[in-house]
Amino acid sequence: MINTVINPDKGQREQLCRRPSIDTDVISDSVREILKEVRLQGDNALKRLTKLYTGTDLNSLKVTDEEINSAGDLLSEDLKSAIRLAAGNIERFHGSQLYTEAATETMPGVLCWRKSVGIEKVGLYIPGGNAPLFSTVLMLGIPANIAGCKEIILCTPADKNGKINPAILFTAGLVGIRSVFMIGGAQAIAAMAYGTETVPKVDKIFGPGNQYVTRAKELIQTEGIAIDMPAGPSEVLVVADEDANPSFVAADLISQAEHGPDSQATLVTNSKTLLEGVLKCLSEQINELPQTTTTSISLDKSNLILMQSIEECFSFSNLYAPEHLIIATRNARADAEKVANAGSVFIGQYSCESAGDYASGTNHTLPTNGYARSYSGLSVDSFIKKITFQQITADGLKELGKAIETMAEAETLYGHKNAVSVRLKTI
Amino acid sequence: MINTVINPDKGQREQLCRRPSIDTDVISDSVREILKEVRLQGDNALKRLTKLYTGTDLNSLKVTDEEINSAGDLLSEDLKSAIRLAAGNIERFHGSQLYTEAATETMPGVLCWRKSVGIEKVGLYIPGGNAPLFSTVLMLGIPANIAGCKEIILCTPADKNGKINPAILFTAGLVGIRSVFMIGGAQAIAAMAYGTETVPKVDKIFGPGNQYVTRAKELIQTEGIAIDMPAGPSEVLVVADEDANPSFVAADLISQAEHGPDSQATLVTNSKTLLEGVLKCLSEQINELPQTTTTSISLDKSNLILMQSIEECFSFSNLYAPEHLIIATRNARADAEKVANAGSVFIGQYSCESAGDYASGTNHTLPTNGYARSYSGLSVDSFIKKITFQQITADGLKELGKAIETMAEAETLYGHKNAVSVRLKTI
Repeated sequence: MINTVINPDKGQREQLCRRPSIDTDVISDSVREILKEVRLQGDNALKRLTKLYTGTDLNSLKVTDEEINSAGDLLSEDLKSAIRLAAGNIERFHGSQLYTEAATETMPGVLCWRKSVGIEKVGLYIPGGNAPLFSTVLMLGIPANIAGCKEIILCTPADKNGKINPAILFTAGLVGIRSVFMIGGAQAIAAMAYGTETVPKVDKIFGPGNQYVTRAKELIQTEGIAIDMPAGPSEVLVVADEDANPSFVAADLISQAEHGPDSQATLVTNSKTLLEGVLKCLSEQINELPQTTTTSISLDKSNLILMQSIEECFSFSNLYAPEHLIIATRNARADAEKVANAGSVFIGQYSCESAGDYASGTNHTLPTNGYARSYSGLSVDSFIKKITFQQITADGLKELGKAIETMAEAETLYGHKNAVSVRLKTI
Repeated sequence: MINTVINPDKGQREQLCRRPSIDTDVISDSVREILKEVRLQGDNALKRLTKLYTGTDLNSLKVTDEEINSAGDLLSEDLKSAIRLAAGNIERFHGSQLYTEAATETMPGVLCWRKSVGIEKVGLYIPGGNAPLFSTVLMLGIPANIAGCKEIILCTPADKNGKINPAILFTAGLVGIRSVFMIGGAQAIAAMAYGTETVPKVDKIFGPGNQYVTRAKELIQTEGIAIDMPAGPSEVLVVADEDANPSFVAADLISQAEHGPDSQATLVTNSKTLLEGVLKCLSEQINELPQTTTTSISLDKSNLILMQSIEECFSFSNLYAPEHLIIATRNARADAEKVANAGSVFIGQYSCESAGDYASGTNHTLPTNGYARSYSGLSVDSFIKKITFQQITADGLKELGKAIETMAEAETLYGHKNAVSVRLKTI
């Protein structure tokens, strides 16, 4: 059952920040084999591996335009409206993330600037399984479009009948992705990293996945292909005081916990009453949900922590650096200023994590496992690179030249000095 | 000698984009050993490894304030002025990179925004050797300050007398870094990644280094510590037409080539006359430089390529994705619009790479080895993370709630749905 901790000391706090660990080393060899096979044998390898792991014979790896166009016929109007509403919000928030920076004249005649340029070719991975993550298609596809990526492809595994969930296809169509491939697992990552007869090679790969997908992304990252960020199990931390609604807090912890046994949900509060209320609501709500088993397993990794003050709660939260941080306190907006490390922050009692997971506009691809100390969540920034430019006039180089020569000589780089000297001679 | 290629076909172009390859696998085992020793034995390991590799007995790992303060006494006024001038320009350009984004109301009652927060603890690595890279202290330290990083530490190896080059110490002092440690190689990366009795653990590690440093950074990246970017040998590509000055172009190629035998310098031009002029200037200039040997070795990996048009030159450059791109054409500024993949671009005949390497204001830590397709160069962005926030009102959730419930149910995540339902019931 869920672990309760009262006033943990420094050592205990560090212990409480530890995430359920996952050892990806054990699967490295098989992932390396898959990468190699796809690199050398292309489409044939993809078909063989799909047959091997799922029993499905694929004639064609690519989903037809017809299938994408008609996918919406299989969905309810309610679901399509919901997806469109979410897409609109995600587009509005991510649309605000792209801007043109002004040039800076650092000295007379020395002009420097940056320009945001979309990464040309990007690959999105959407896992299969029981839960069709069409929301992730929105979260990856929309910023890729805004960034101006020229080629956007998507890989996702087909089911045993060789079909892809229509919600995924509908959403892909909605965000304008026409290149969808029925490939899953490490072989999908390999296909996008190396390219095959059918699948184009991309410059950067995005999206969640199981341990094989994660390990494949780690490995191809050292081979010239960029990836979105290190992956790990999802997590939430809720900071709450006596004003918080225990039922809301319990629901937020459960919504995290249902992601599976590796997920971690943490409550940090300065109120014993609230903590006890949450404990009570947890068991009530779990009993009313269909997936009781999964949920109860996952709460084993979770903690309810009682601290002496709200300050201490935020100090712990910043140490933990949660992927999702919910602030359910009386002065939530002011308290948000105390956040130093977090992926995405939900302020006040009506800002539940589910809102950001689906439809409010923020991205749900976020740094886990303490990476929020140094990584940002996914945004339009993830789909662009910023190229620096400089233009120096003859007069500019006259002003700047001597400093460059002096510094280059002090670093014993005479060729660097010479590149300035040959120019200064002519001015 | 340098390789000349005329009108390469598609296959040849891909071949010309290959970088000199470096196999870091062979040193993995020794780097793993070093990481492990430092993790388990802290300062003792650092002292033992320093003694082993450099013969130096270190009593203390930390440079004293006195040493930092007095380092400038050992430098010429010319050098100190040059460093100050460069620092001013770098500060002005990087200072323009930090801004506050406005919040977006994606729907009535749904407010989303991002906030840039400095990464709390960062570690900078500066290699030792003959060339004291004090310029890199500016390039890493200044953006770290602008980003608001709270703790900035620097590791760099001492020489055989247990001293650090005074230009490095002076520059560290100038940018306000007071925590300088005399540690080099993979053990320095390990010290900053794990922390020791003396060296604080950091969240992200920056800076260049040899193969051991590079491999150590790659390995610790999978253990929760972020790194600046994948490292590789430096490279330049010059696009030039008949208007370019062959002497300037030759000097730029040489200034790249002196970085060592793995560096690659490439000229792409539509003018046979220019190409021949550059070839002539190359041998003339090399003969006048002190480091002839290094330089000539390095040009073995370099190429002079003749294309049929300037369009084709840029098409090749975008395929190559150079770290540094110099545009020496009649319409350089307009041609710069054709750049899709590059780290830093130098426009026109007076914008030599050395300017950006030292003093114009742009950063010299840039993506190599084709990573310019997906990575940006170092900037203030590299020292911050952007945290997303959202605040939803009761009315906002009323508008948004049904869409979230519908989407969560379609993804079979009933806990996510429930987190909205418990709230909607109370509104």
